[in-house]
Amino acid sequence: MTGRDPGRRYLMGTSPRTHRLDVTATGAEGSWIELADGRRLLDFHGQHMCIGVGHRHPKLTAALHRAVDRLDYVADFFPHQDKDRAARLLVEETMDESAWVGGVRFVSSGSEATELAMIVAKLYKNRPLIVTRDLAYHGWTAGAAAVTGITALRNGLTLEDGSSRPVPTSHPPYPSAPAPICSSCPLGQTYPSCKDSTGTLACVNATERVIRSAGVDRVAAFITEIWHGAGAFLVPDEYVGQIRELTRRLGVLWIDDEAISGVGRTGRWWAFQHYDVHPDIMTAAKGLSSSAVPVGACLVSTEIADFFGRGWWGHSSTFAGHPLALAAVVATLEIMIEEDLVSRAADLGGVVESRLKDIVARHGCAAGYSGRGLVWGVELIRDPATGQRWVEADRWRNPGLDPTTGFQPTGLVLGECLRRDVLLFSYAPNTVTIAPPLRITAEEMEIGLDALDAALDRLDERNAA
Amino acid sequence: MTGRDPGRRYLMGTSPRTHRLDVTATGAEGSWIELADGRRLLDFHGQHMCIGVGHRHPKLTAALHRAVDRLDYVADFFPHQDKDRAARLLVEETMDESAWVGGVRFVSSGSEATELAMIVAKLYKNRPLIVTRDLAYHGWTAGAAAVTGITALRNGLTLEDGSSRPVPTSHPPYPSAPAPICSSCPLGQTYPSCKDSTGTLACVNATERVIRSAGVDRVAAFITEIWHGAGAFLVPDEYVGQIRELTRRLGVLWIDDEAISGVGRTGRWWAFQHYDVHPDIMTAAKGLSSSAVPVGACLVSTEIADFFGRGWWGHSSTFAGHPLALAAVVATLEIMIEEDLVSRAADLGGVVESRLKDIVARHGCAAGYSGRGLVWGVELIRDPATGQRWVEADRWRNPGLDPTTGFQPTGLVLGECLRRDVLLFSYAPNTVTIAPPLRITAEEMEIGLDALDAALDRLDERNAA
Amino acid sequence: MTGRDPGRRYLMGTSPRTHRLDVTATGAEGSWIELADGRRLLDFHGQHMCIGVGHRHPKLTAALHRAVDRLDYVADFFPHQDKDRAARLLVEETMDESAWVGGVRFVSSGSEATELAMIVAKLYKNRPLIVTRDLAYHGWTAGAAAVTGITALRNGLTLEDGSSRPVPTSHPPYPSAPAPICSSCPLGQTYPSCKDSTGTLACVNATERVIRSAGVDRVAAFITEIWHGAGAFLVPDEYVGQIRELTRRLGVLWIDDEAISGVGRTGRWWAFQHYDVHPDIMTAAKGLSSSAVPVGACLVSTEIADFFGRGWWGHSSTFAGHPLALAAVVATLEIMIEEDLVSRAADLGGVVESRLKDIVARHGCAAGYSGRGLVWGVELIRDPATGQRWVEADRWRNPGLDPTTGFQPTGLVLGECLRRDVLLFSYAPNTVTIAPPLRITAEEMEIGLDALDAALDRLDERNAA
Amino acid sequence: MTGRDPGRRYLMGTSPRTHRLDVTATGAEGSWIELADGRRLLDFHGQHMCIGVGHRHPKLTAALHRAVDRLDYVADFFPHQDKDRAARLLVEETMDESAWVGGVRFVSSGSEATELAMIVAKLYKNRPLIVTRDLAYHGWTAGAAAVTGITALRNGLTLEDGSSRPVPTSHPPYPSAPAPICSSCPLGQTYPSCKDSTGTLACVNATERVIRSAGVDRVAAFITEIWHGAGAFLVPDEYVGQIRELTRRLGVLWIDDEAISGVGRTGRWWAFQHYDVHPDIMTAAKGLSSSAVPVGACLVSTEIADFFGRGWWGHSSTFAGHPLALAAVVATLEIMIEEDLVSRAADLGGVVESRLKDIVARHGCAAGYSGRGLVWGVELIRDPATGQRWVEADRWRNPGLDPTTGFQPTGLVLGECLRRDVLLFSYAPNTVTIAPPLRITAEEMEIGLDALDAALDRLDERNAA
Ligand SMILES: Cc1ncc(COP(=O)(O)O)c(C=O)c1O
Ligand SMILES: Cc1ncc(COP(=O)(O)O)c(C=O)c1O
Ligand SMILES: Cc1ncc(COP(=O)(O)O)c(C=O)c1O
Ligand SMILES: Cc1ncc(COP(=O)(O)O)c(C=O)c1O
Repeated sequence: MTGRDPGRRYLMGTSPRTHRLDVTATGAEGSWIELADGRRLLDFHGQHMCIGVGHRHPKLTAALHRAVDRLDYVADFFPHQDKDRAARLLVEETMDESAWVGGVRFVSSGSEATELAMIVAKLYKNRPLIVTRDLAYHGWTAGAAAVTGITALRNGLTLEDGSSRPVPTSHPPYPSAPAPICSSCPLGQTYPSCKDSTGTLACVNATERVIRSAGVDRVAAFITEIWHGAGAFLVPDEYVGQIRELTRRLGVLWIDDEAISGVGRTGRWWAFQHYDVHPDIMTAAKGLSSSAVPVGACLVSTEIADFFGRGWWGHSSTFAGHPLALAAVVATLEIMIEEDLVSRAADLGGVVESRLKDIVARHGCAAGYSGRGLVWGVELIRDPATGQRWVEADRWRNPGLDPTTGFQPTGLVLGECLRRDVLLFSYAPNTVTIAPPLRITAEEMEIGLDALDAALDRLDERNAA
Repeated sequence: MTGRDPGRRYLMGTSPRTHRLDVTATGAEGSWIELADGRRLLDFHGQHMCIGVGHRHPKLTAALHRAVDRLDYVADFFPHQDKDRAARLLVEETMDESAWVGGVRFVSSGSEATELAMIVAKLYKNRPLIVTRDLAYHGWTAGAAAVTGITALRNGLTLEDGSSRPVPTSHPPYPSAPAPICSSCPLGQTYPSCKDSTGTLACVNATERVIRSAGVDRVAAFITEIWHGAGAFLVPDEYVGQIRELTRRLGVLWIDDEAISGVGRTGRWWAFQHYDVHPDIMTAAKGLSSSAVPVGACLVSTEIADFFGRGWWGHSSTFAGHPLALAAVVATLEIMIEEDLVSRAADLGGVVESRLKDIVARHGCAAGYSGRGLVWGVELIRDPATGQRWVEADRWRNPGLDPTTGFQPTGLVLGECLRRDVLLFSYAPNTVTIAPPLRITAEEMEIGLDALDAALDRLDERNAA
Repeated sequence: MTGRDPGRRYLMGTSPRTHRLDVTATGAEGSWIELADGRRLLDFHGQHMCIGVGHRHPKLTAALHRAVDRLDYVADFFPHQDKDRAARLLVEETMDESAWVGGVRFVSSGSEATELAMIVAKLYKNRPLIVTRDLAYHGWTAGAAAVTGITALRNGLTLEDGSSRPVPTSHPPYPSAPAPICSSCPLGQTYPSCKDSTGTLACVNATERVIRSAGVDRVAAFITEIWHGAGAFLVPDEYVGQIRELTRRLGVLWIDDEAISGVGRTGRWWAFQHYDVHPDIMTAAKGLSSSAVPVGACLVSTEIADFFGRGWWGHSSTFAGHPLALAAVVATLEIMIEEDLVSRAADLGGVVESRLKDIVARHGCAAGYSGRGLVWGVELIRDPATGQRWVEADRWRNPGLDPTTGFQPTGLVLGECLRRDVLLFSYAPNTVTIAPPLRITAEEMEIGLDALDAALDRLDERNAA
Repeated sequence: MTGRDPGRRYLMGTSPRTHRLDVTATGAEGSWIELADGRRLLDFHGQHMCIGVGHRHPKLTAALHRAVDRLDYVADFFPHQDKDRAARLLVEETMDESAWVGGVRFVSSGSEATELAMIVAKLYKNRPLIVTRDLAYHGWTAGAAAVTGITALRNGLTLEDGSSRPVPTSHPPYPSAPAPICSSCPLGQTYPSCKDSTGTLACVNATERVIRSAGVDRVAAFITEIWHGAGAFLVPDEYVGQIRELTRRLGVLWIDDEAISGVGRTGRWWAFQHYDVHPDIMTAAKGLSSSAVPVGACLVSTEIADFFGRGWWGHSSTFAGHPLALAAVVATLEIMIEEDLVSRAADLGGVVESRLKDIVARHGCAAGYSGRGLVWGVELIRDPATGQRWVEADRWRNPGLDPTTGFQPTGLVLGECLRRDVLLFSYAPNTVTIAPPLRITAEEMEIGLDALDAALDRLDERNAA
């Protein structure tokens, strides 16, 4: 059966019923998704940046078949082979020479990984607060949402009359530092002149201020992304090292959320490895299993692992360490290693960058690009002369409509790409994000970038009109 | 490979490193789990009550193979066949004649299902509080933990020196009503004389009091389990109907957590169906996919679905509606229907009950039993004459040691069963729980109950000594 | 000037502008309040139970004159004579032989005293939660309101359309135990048959359950009143001793709020002294200065005082230890001692009780009375035969209207008393409260009780009609 | 009696017992405080900036005598003359031509005024959050402390071993914007070059960011001081107007805390009046009664007053509108008007400023000054050449010791002043604050400034040594 099942009307989505997509995905292979009507789409955004080794990589598929024939499910207290092996691969094969990781725990999503990291940090430091950043995204469950700075992604509802209803939570948001986004610096600064006399970035100084204001003795950890997925931007170069120095100096843990930027996406196993430091706690998800099975992970330093290893922990998660999920993790990591996909991502990243440079140069509507390895964002602009954006509020509000005209620039771009069978996404109102499978071929890459190029032509034409 | 991988030392578990199990699960089939040393264990507790249609049911296995060969992963905005079908099966095939469900949303665990239910309730009612019960368990993420009444399962750490360190949360627990547990009524009452002149149970009246005290205009929902999994008890018969009446009268939603008690476990599709009422929001997990793939679900009434169907919801979950997970759900539900496993659970429940009746009668150390269908708890007691328990604090604290002697009665019972290759669990200090796969054969059932019988002999002997 | 100042229209009250009282208080003396129109009202309720030694007791007045001529205000770090003396009087003269108090701190209201007690308890135990009771009142500021069980007094607004709007607080209510109110036991029990085999009251067992459910390692203190002022009831006799035993056993502090019941009101200096135990932290207000100057106090045990006495405390309150307030406290305490008003309150209490006994016996509309010393509540009832109340929800909701007829029984009683120039109050919908100045004469007492007697006649007549 | 009462040992202070002041204040008059040993101190700091019309102004003293002889206390529902009159004076005499105030409510402290303002804002907007600033101080009760940005003043304890213990609160701090302090801009900017192209200050832009990040639909109000009392600095000129524009544009209320800066202190009745705008809610305390009686007030706009005037408000405060407190308010306001003390403060401010200019110029250890009217702060510096501060962390931590040497520069300055019988205070580690009574004579002013001048000589000498 390929068609639409009447059960679809029962599915509770996140857009109004009248706006739901009416296609059906029936298959996927490599960089392509197949639809019920026979169409094939180039998955140029990798399904929320998830598809690491490509759709249905034969070795991953084979591993899943083997796993299905072996052990369906045992509770987390049972050791099993893939759980052991996944832990070893992560700790021993992906951390370069560094031996900072002492413990790994697997859960079932990125949000759960964030929740776990927060619990671990709070227990280890015996302090109640986590400090986060504006424009951050760490998930949707209560804890993860409380460190999520993107207001539009905190589970609120926009009602028919246009009014918004935030979740009437009994939990105030955690303290939040300014987002380290140079293309529209919230501190009104310009990189690199934002550095103070000691070379410290203004946003890092601001983070120190926020931690001190919350009270150092109440703050368990500071949480970051490096490529901000939902915010669609990369932190400035000095940021990560300076955050490491800051958190160490203040005696606060550093949680690095690598749900998106991990597992080779940025051209290193983990994004933090570009910066010659390591976090105290790290999370992974999405690419960890190429999303073949829901899974997330939380990795902790040896100090933290030792601390927990001596206690009884009143914590239980049914699907933690699920055999099928771990089979997918093991297969994904082994493929990454065998095919050296991390280096490949770095190399392809160079190709993308030079192509984006050219594309941006040729389009008035493209203000710039940002990214690393195989995750990139392109910023759209209304008026190249004045730098005026389409949606002024930018990353603060959904869904990216120019309020005066109702025109949605990202909508035009995504639509034009889709007409060319290229699937792209946009998180922030003025930005489109590219994050193809790491095994995308050079040819497929060109198809995707050509589509983007053509789509930007259309936006330029509209502007000129 | 069957042995222990050195990666195991990196796995972060919940018991001290020195206490970790040193076996390896290598396979599972039907009601049995296979270990690396060749041993086979009867899975008499179904891995946290998860294994619905049995380990690796051939049809479920086949469905997973098919799914692996089809569509690995697409984001939630893509419809696909199994998602549609799973929604239809749940709404149209499992709800008897009732058409109360208007929306279904799939996430990746029971905790996520709880989180989603809480968010939905708060947004729909535009109120910040959820009221829960003592001895409840609804998961470990920040929101779910805040409605979890079992203190020992709120992610706290028991340190080497015996002291406990709760998660230094910035979120007070939600208001909590007394647990509806008749075997040790927290209100000091005896069922059924606890009913007031209108027939209302004391625990239901107490729940009204707690909701009113929290402020009806602040309470979005009351959340229940029916079989309290981690508490290991069944609510009294009148409870569910009276809770429905109460919540309706006060204008508060009722969330029914069927993570454990759903999908046939109690001899009906859903435990609430024994009581001729339906909730406003229901969650499912565990048995929903026979735990073959991590998945949870949240079902909502037509009113709620309509409300959400008209708005934009700032909510996103990567693995929501994951194709592989949904394939497992569809296969599980279809097997349940084809093999009529719901009725089978009801029938087998009768067998278990009469056998438990006899076992309890013959053992001084067994105080009673409680349950329905294929989920049962047996209460252990130190002194049948006085009714004195082993662990006085009972469900409030973890490891179930008699504090004076260090003796752990459930430890003895589980150990004796394990010596007989029967795997049982205990959540509450004085209780062991039985929840085998729904397809367990009559013969296997006898093996399990015989082991329990023999184990209780040992406990009686120890008491006599 | 005696009349109404046009400035009155700017005063922000708590009832709708259309319902504000349009009289002017111009003076007060002894047990009487004088109005601008020459009328004199017997202050039979003592202005929220505040007027200890009587309005404008000559010695108190003289002490205030002296204080005004001496030292207007110095900050709290300055010692001054009345602050020293007040501390000594409280610790050495009002605590019988017991030397439990090690520290006293003065603030400016009952709410501030509660806030201080909560902060002290949390810091001393290093734990975040305070457990309270339903139907409690401890003040209106954010912390005090969070332990206030009376929903109608948590600063919410009842809008014109009858709907209620709770303060959209970001703080869930603290865990709350059932109210220890025997006249309508929330546990459906009847005193004294509510005691378990060890003699423990059901409400005390329920309190243990609530503390355990919140997690003993998270609970800093349990807070009580003894005479519940806003709830208008006295705790059962065994309650206080059992709460002391319970909190000690669990290692949790006990905070006793004596804002109302302190300074002789119940016939002992402090209400806890009837029970042969003492709290860890005690608050006082209202009667402490006979309300001549705003003041509250927090008294702590020697252990707690020693702990704080060794540290630097980042706490500052401008008016803490205000010279004028402390002059009023010293004068009030000295008058209490010189005139032996504590014993007088005890003696007069006997008179009131026997008179109330008779009044209740003679009125079908009077269901009973409760109290001690000079604070009493009389419960009104709609139907003596069936025990049916006027306002079913009783203490849960505010204005005390019978919802079907709009009739307000307490309104009738208070109004009839007022016609007789006797001022009475009602907090709970079916209850009127008596709490005259402690120096009220026997004659004045008769006037007040006669008025009540006559008012109840009117209510009986109305019922008969 | 003039000496030390043994009761002093029971007083619970905020510094360790071994560090308590061992003097006794026995009287006060005009600008002077008298001690038991006969010494007279010039109250050059006005007791936490409280002493408006001077200590024991004869008219205020007379008014208190009259009040004591009239009406001791009636509950808030009773109108009385001084309450009416105080409301009228505030609304009609202190607000220039503007008629923005529609309601006034009196409570008993600055903290209570903050709490009330927060409750009013939350109810009116029906939103749960208040946004505040770092280095703010708004009081110590739970709500007020949650908007207090000065970590050292959030009621935490510094233990003997030097470690700090924050109040284990269950309430995360409210979202906090950077402090608008130009002398050490937290954003690393320099006024006025911190303005963006539209002239908006960087700290105002940062405030917009914090409000947006918290979610505009969750924020009820933004709270400010204008002279930050505990932070000891004045906001930059454009700040107030831009905050007004910002809050109006976002649809958020603006609460102006005038506990310190109100009642003429800055040379206008209220500090906001320097800026040609008005807040939605304003608080007052301290100077409102010259601190002769504990009192605070909350003033609200006509829109808010109308909204509340139509509802029943479940709010009660015993000492709200206390007759003696209101007598002090009326007398203070009348004296202010009669003696034109507001203009006098403005004029004297000019004198102070020119003298401070000179003093700072002549002292290497003085980095600068800031203030308006009769409230000023002087910043101390370790090294004028490099601008190096004494205490690097500055306003973040108590008690201002240079951590390496243990030297406390403010301690030296205050001590030297005290040797000269001039009482000064310091809140922030590197700053001393001047805030004498508004009626201080020119001569007394010189005495105070001379003392400061001489004290700074000593600090310069020490630096030179
Ligand atoms: C950085 C980051 N963290 C956490 C999450 C949450 O992951 P999930 O959607 O699996 O719950 C996401 C999801 O997009 C993410 O991008
Ligand atoms: C009733 C109930 N709800 C929720 C959960 C949480 O599910 P999970 O462990 O999948 O997060 C459980 C898990 O045991 C449960 O028993
Ligand atoms: C028992 C109790 N505690 C605290 C308070 C609060 O006191 P205040 O109104 O002075 O803030 C009251 C006031 O009625 C009270 O009755
Ligand atoms: C600006 C400000 N607000 C509020 C307060 C709190 O006032 P109180 O100490 O009277 O509670 C203060 C006290 O110093 C203050 O300076």
